[in-house]
Amino acid sequence: MTTINADSDDQVYEEMSRRGAAPLWRHLGNLFLDEPKSAAVPHLWKYPELRELALHFAGRLSIEEAQRRVIMLVNPGLQDPPATVNTLFAGLQVLMPGEQAPAHRHTANAFRFIIEGSGVYTTVDGERVHMNPGDLLLTAGWQWHDHHHEGDDVTIWLDGLDYPLVNMLECGFFELFPDGVQAPTEPDDISTRQMIHGRLNPVWMNGRPAAGRPIGNYPWAETEKALASVADNADGSAHDGVIFEYANPWTGGAVLPTISCRIQRLRPGFAGKPRQQTASFISHVVRGEGTVTVDGRDYDWGRNDVFAVPGWHEYSLSNASASQDAVIFSYSNEPALRALGLYREQLG
Amino acid sequence: MTTINADSDDQVYEEMSRRGAAPLWRHLGNLFLDEPKSAAVPHLWKYPELRELALHFAGRLSIEEAQRRVIMLVNPGLQDPPATVNTLFAGLQVLMPGEQAPAHRHTANAFRFIIEGSGVYTTVDGERVHMNPGDLLLTAGWQWHDHHHEGDDVTIWLDGLDYPLVNMLECGFFELFPDGVQAPTEPDDISTRQMIHGRLNPVWMNGRPAAGRPIGNYPWAETEKALASVADNADGSAHDGVIFEYANPWTGGAVLPTISCRIQRLRPGFAGKPRQQTASFISHVVRGEGTVTVDGRDYDWGRNDVFAVPGWHEYSLSNASASQDAVIFSYSNEPALRALGLYREQLG
Amino acid sequence: MTTINADSDDQVYEEMSRRGAAPLWRHLGNLFLDEPKSAAVPHLWKYPELRELALHFAGRLSIEEAQRRVIMLVNPGLQDPPATVNTLFAGLQVLMPGEQAPAHRHTANAFRFIIEGSGVYTTVDGERVHMNPGDLLLTAGWQWHDHHHEGDDVTIWLDGLDYPLVNMLECGFFELFPDGVQAPTEPDDISTRQMIHGRLNPVWMNGRPAAGRPIGNYPWAETEKALASVADNADGSAHDGVIFEYANPWTGGAVLPTISCRIQRLRPGFAGKPRQQTASFISHVVRGEGTVTVDGRDYDWGRNDVFAVPGWHEYSLSNASASQDAVIFSYSNEPALRALGLYREQLG
Amino acid sequence: MTTINADSDDQVYEEMSRRGAAPLWRHLGNLFLDEPKSAAVPHLWKYPELRELALHFAGRLSIEEAQRRVIMLVNPGLQDPPATVNTLFAGLQVLMPGEQAPAHRHTANAFRFIIEGSGVYTTVDGERVHMNPGDLLLTAGWQWHDHHHEGDDVTIWLDGLDYPLVNMLECGFFELFPDGVQAPTEPDDISTRQMIHGRLNPVWMNGRPAAGRPIGNYPWAETEKALASVADNADGSAHDGVIFEYANPWTGGAVLPTISCRIQRLRPGFAGKPRQQTASFISHVVRGEGTVTVDGRDYDWGRNDVFAVPGWHEYSLSNASASQDAVIFSYSNEPALRALGLYREQLG
Repeated sequence: MTTINADSDDQVYEEMSRRGAAPLWRHLGNLFLDEPKSAAVPHLWKYPELRELALHFAGRLSIEEAQRRVIMLVNPGLQDPPATVNTLFAGLQVLMPGEQAPAHRHTANAFRFIIEGSGVYTTVDGERVHMNPGDLLLTAGWQWHDHHHEGDDVTIWLDGLDYPLVNMLECGFFELFPDGVQAPTEPDDISTRQMIHGRLNPVWMNGRPAAGRPIGNYPWAETEKALASVADNADGSAHDGVIFEYANPWTGGAVLPTISCRIQRLRPGFAGKPRQQTASFISHVVRGEGTVTVDGRDYDWGRNDVFAVPGWHEYSLSNASASQDAVIFSYSNEPALRALGLYREQLG
Repeated sequence: MTTINADSDDQVYEEMSRRGAAPLWRHLGNLFLDEPKSAAVPHLWKYPELRELALHFAGRLSIEEAQRRVIMLVNPGLQDPPATVNTLFAGLQVLMPGEQAPAHRHTANAFRFIIEGSGVYTTVDGERVHMNPGDLLLTAGWQWHDHHHEGDDVTIWLDGLDYPLVNMLECGFFELFPDGVQAPTEPDDISTRQMIHGRLNPVWMNGRPAAGRPIGNYPWAETEKALASVADNADGSAHDGVIFEYANPWTGGAVLPTISCRIQRLRPGFAGKPRQQTASFISHVVRGEGTVTVDGRDYDWGRNDVFAVPGWHEYSLSNASASQDAVIFSYSNEPALRALGLYREQLG
Repeated sequence: MTTINADSDDQVYEEMSRRGAAPLWRHLGNLFLDEPKSAAVPHLWKYPELRELALHFAGRLSIEEAQRRVIMLVNPGLQDPPATVNTLFAGLQVLMPGEQAPAHRHTANAFRFIIEGSGVYTTVDGERVHMNPGDLLLTAGWQWHDHHHEGDDVTIWLDGLDYPLVNMLECGFFELFPDGVQAPTEPDDISTRQMIHGRLNPVWMNGRPAAGRPIGNYPWAETEKALASVADNADGSAHDGVIFEYANPWTGGAVLPTISCRIQRLRPGFAGKPRQQTASFISHVVRGEGTVTVDGRDYDWGRNDVFAVPGWHEYSLSNASASQDAVIFSYSNEPALRALGLYREQLG
Repeated sequence: MTTINADSDDQVYEEMSRRGAAPLWRHLGNLFLDEPKSAAVPHLWKYPELRELALHFAGRLSIEEAQRRVIMLVNPGLQDPPATVNTLFAGLQVLMPGEQAPAHRHTANAFRFIIEGSGVYTTVDGERVHMNPGDLLLTAGWQWHDHHHEGDDVTIWLDGLDYPLVNMLECGFFELFPDGVQAPTEPDDISTRQMIHGRLNPVWMNGRPAAGRPIGNYPWAETEKALASVADNADGSAHDGVIFEYANPWTGGAVLPTISCRIQRLRPGFAGKPRQQTASFISHVVRGEGTVTVDGRDYDWGRNDVFAVPGWHEYSLSNASASQDAVIFSYSNEPALRALGLYREQLG
């Protein structure tokens, strides 16, 4: 061990560094901020711009080359590695008639929210799950999944993943399926058919499955019914309107341990109160037009647009129309933050 | 303190009794049995016999006199106090056009499963909940409830309660509503409309309500859909067929802390394997015909009949028809026993 | 089916009974009371009276004849079947030098709180657990246990069991150990030695054991330290003084699913506020003298006495001494009632 | 919207970037690795080297200037921002006689494990908690804390924090206490005195506190007793020896939501089997000498040294001495990963 030469502070700090150490007093201000400041910025992506890119590559890049033909929505503040908000990713995946995307699995949890197309299904752990606009499909961490297009139209869906979180925590595993695509081993859409109606849980499944998603698909047909059924008889939240969380039937909690998925309806003329939370979220507009105001700046959205609101930015939502509902699908890392005791909010 | 006179055992036992004591060695065999032996016996009630009684009193006894016009299904082994199985009660309640049963509340948890009639609703904590055949209505402990008939037909439903358990544990409270019947304070059927579709939970309710039922009504229209949706693509349980539990949306567990409600479908020709469990259950036949065999004795049931299977009796179920489904609603004290670590089963 | 003869109400009620039915309107008042009324009554047992009985039989009745030589504390209101409060039992067990009580197991949960003696151990699932005055030993449901006296003094302990609850719910199983007594298979007192100090949980046990008690013995040496360590620096509860619950190290909850065990210290001159709860409890005086007032009547207790306070009776506790602490061990069915949503209290 | 110029792929990718998008197919391999590869590297810090640095600055830098005089243990792979493993930090804090470090609070959870010194206390939310070698003090997120030295010796402790995780998730808040240091408002050491002995939980605290640490200090005197009490009667884990987790008394789980703290004893000659886990951990040697082998490379540790094992590196531990125990304090992010469903291990 070299003895510290006390003649010069600089030399001591150098020696400190050689010993694998650093002075906290020179870092304190950077490591302990008064309040969070996200690297991500609020951002809005216009669907037509992304769709054009997707179609361009649909014609240029084979699914064999791409494995997954996904246009990533990269937050201007999160370029490397690319992410949409701190722990979440959004991408638009395009699949063309006749294509199939090969099977793989990863630790990251994923879902798809279908935007356009028909005749498509995803095989998840041997179950073929059919996809129609507005459907929410789950692929929980480590479930095999491959995508198949047997219809006639361009199909585009929103992919949501938590790989930024999984990678941050250095917990990511990935594996290709040995035989390219899976052969079906379960009845088609059985996980949905067994669980989507009437809040009934299959007793013979003996409680929550050890692994995997609780339900393969939360179909739009049912989601739409929920929105319609409430009609104008619930005030909902002053901040987010009539907002529902897709629930895990075995726990009543979020559908994925790190992601809460939600559908919300802003009634004509809705003007939400402002709200600030440590959670970050990403929203996809199912229908309608309106504005999200973040830190005083307006972002105007229309059908199929996507916007991101990073944590601890003050946001408020409004529906521009005096006669039409706006319907928004969104997803948030709130359950991850709550599980770690890190969720905090401030209501305006 | 008298000194014990050792001359005579009898005198010592008398003195023991005077001191508030007794010898365990004279009770051991009665208090610690090798296995449970229910006071209740397996029993079947034929609906036409009960319906006739109900109608008889519908004509003779005003709702004012009766408060609740309920024909109790009394287990031959549980006459005093009357109960259907050890911790559960079943009764048939009849309400006639124009009648209303006054509001009260009790610690006991209750549900109603509608058998016949229309134009009826129950007001539960200010919410009018409409009742149609096959619907399951919940009234959790300590919720105000009154019943109203605004239709034209005799209405009969199955009442299920856990008052035998509540009374056994000496936890029963009861209160009459000051003003006879409640005025509606909530939108009609709102708790169902907000929660029955698509496994969506209202975020603005901020998690599980502190008290009260999770959902007012699990309507038959949705239950029927669940049964149909599975079609012939699930094997279900070898003992109970395709059996679903009505789930609490906030927990994924039973709808009431002491009662699990279930709907089950026995496919044509179904012959269930035998099963023995410490839980007791009561079944009501929604449709179809078949047999429950308990401890080797057959009980043949048909539409609307009710049967009781007390705990630790071996039972098996079969559907007599080669072409028609049998559909059974049942309720069990399994969640109460599990909560206390006392559930045990043996599968044949 | 006989047709109802409407000529006579009595005949209809008879026919009703033949059909296994009864009119709720004739039972309503008995089944739904305004508030609970326990069958058990408040009661105090004087230790010297019970000890004399125990010693009498210690000389007259061999352990082979008795299997367990237990003087049952029978509540005057609960004679048949005998119990101490609705769901709980208290008994004094006496074991003489050289005796051993054979191994058995039962669904009922049990504990022992040692009053006097030394040189005694209980073998629980192969682990010898040594017993000294003030120790709390657990035998959870279905654990083998036999008792051995290798010392020189009369040994007496308080047995607490939940057999009244287990029997009420018809879930009791019982089995004799094939070979009389168990051979030790674990290191002596290992479950205590591994878990009693410093709130440290053995990681290699991988979380809560599937079955069985969490800790074999909560020794008095540690309990005494806890009481002393708080000294006069905690106010404790206005109703129950400085009161601790023996905790399950894997859950933080009660040591048995149906019974909470507690130790409490009433400081000199303590005069507790009145309290009423649906839970019932039984108390054993470790040291000191004082009074429990139930529904306005005083019961004066001294060292080793036992008293029972049934549910929904108003009670208050006081320490008669101006200079000495009173220390009381007690057990309650509160966790069972809470698990079923039936706990309620009213604080004076 | 510019129309895509299809003449050149490069131009399309540029346009894509302008639209806030990127091609997943060019990132797939970097975002989805076959298995985790930590940025942190295994590393060992020698205590004498760090101590010398600490003492150097103790003489040069006033506590007023430094606020906290902490030598950070910076992982060679995690320089900016500095951290010890991905989600955890280790530092050595030195406090000199007469000094006091001003009060602040932060979202990050913290603990201190005392290495040397005496006469020091930390005030946590108004409670003075005294610190002696081997003690584990908790400061849960958002608790005020300041440090005071009223003794005569240099005091050094290990600071553990989860600020890397909190910052990664952008949830960090920080606040200075208005008046420099807190005035005591609670009896000294009361949270420890109320909870450390005999696994007894204060009933009057009514279950888990809404916020804050469960116990202020897990004192070494008790920890030592736990290690001694097991003696040679437990095999412990084949990988980690006789290893205990400091438990939250209200839940039985980890003491902080994101950090598990542990104490482990490697008996003389212990040679642990290899193990690989997604969790990362940091170890501080309380006494003894031995080796940690990570990915085949040996790191030899002695008294007070600190070593870091990042996730998914294979490690094994051995005690070099044939006659002396080695005792190690360690902390891990396992609870955070488990809460998110991301914990995985592979046992050799």
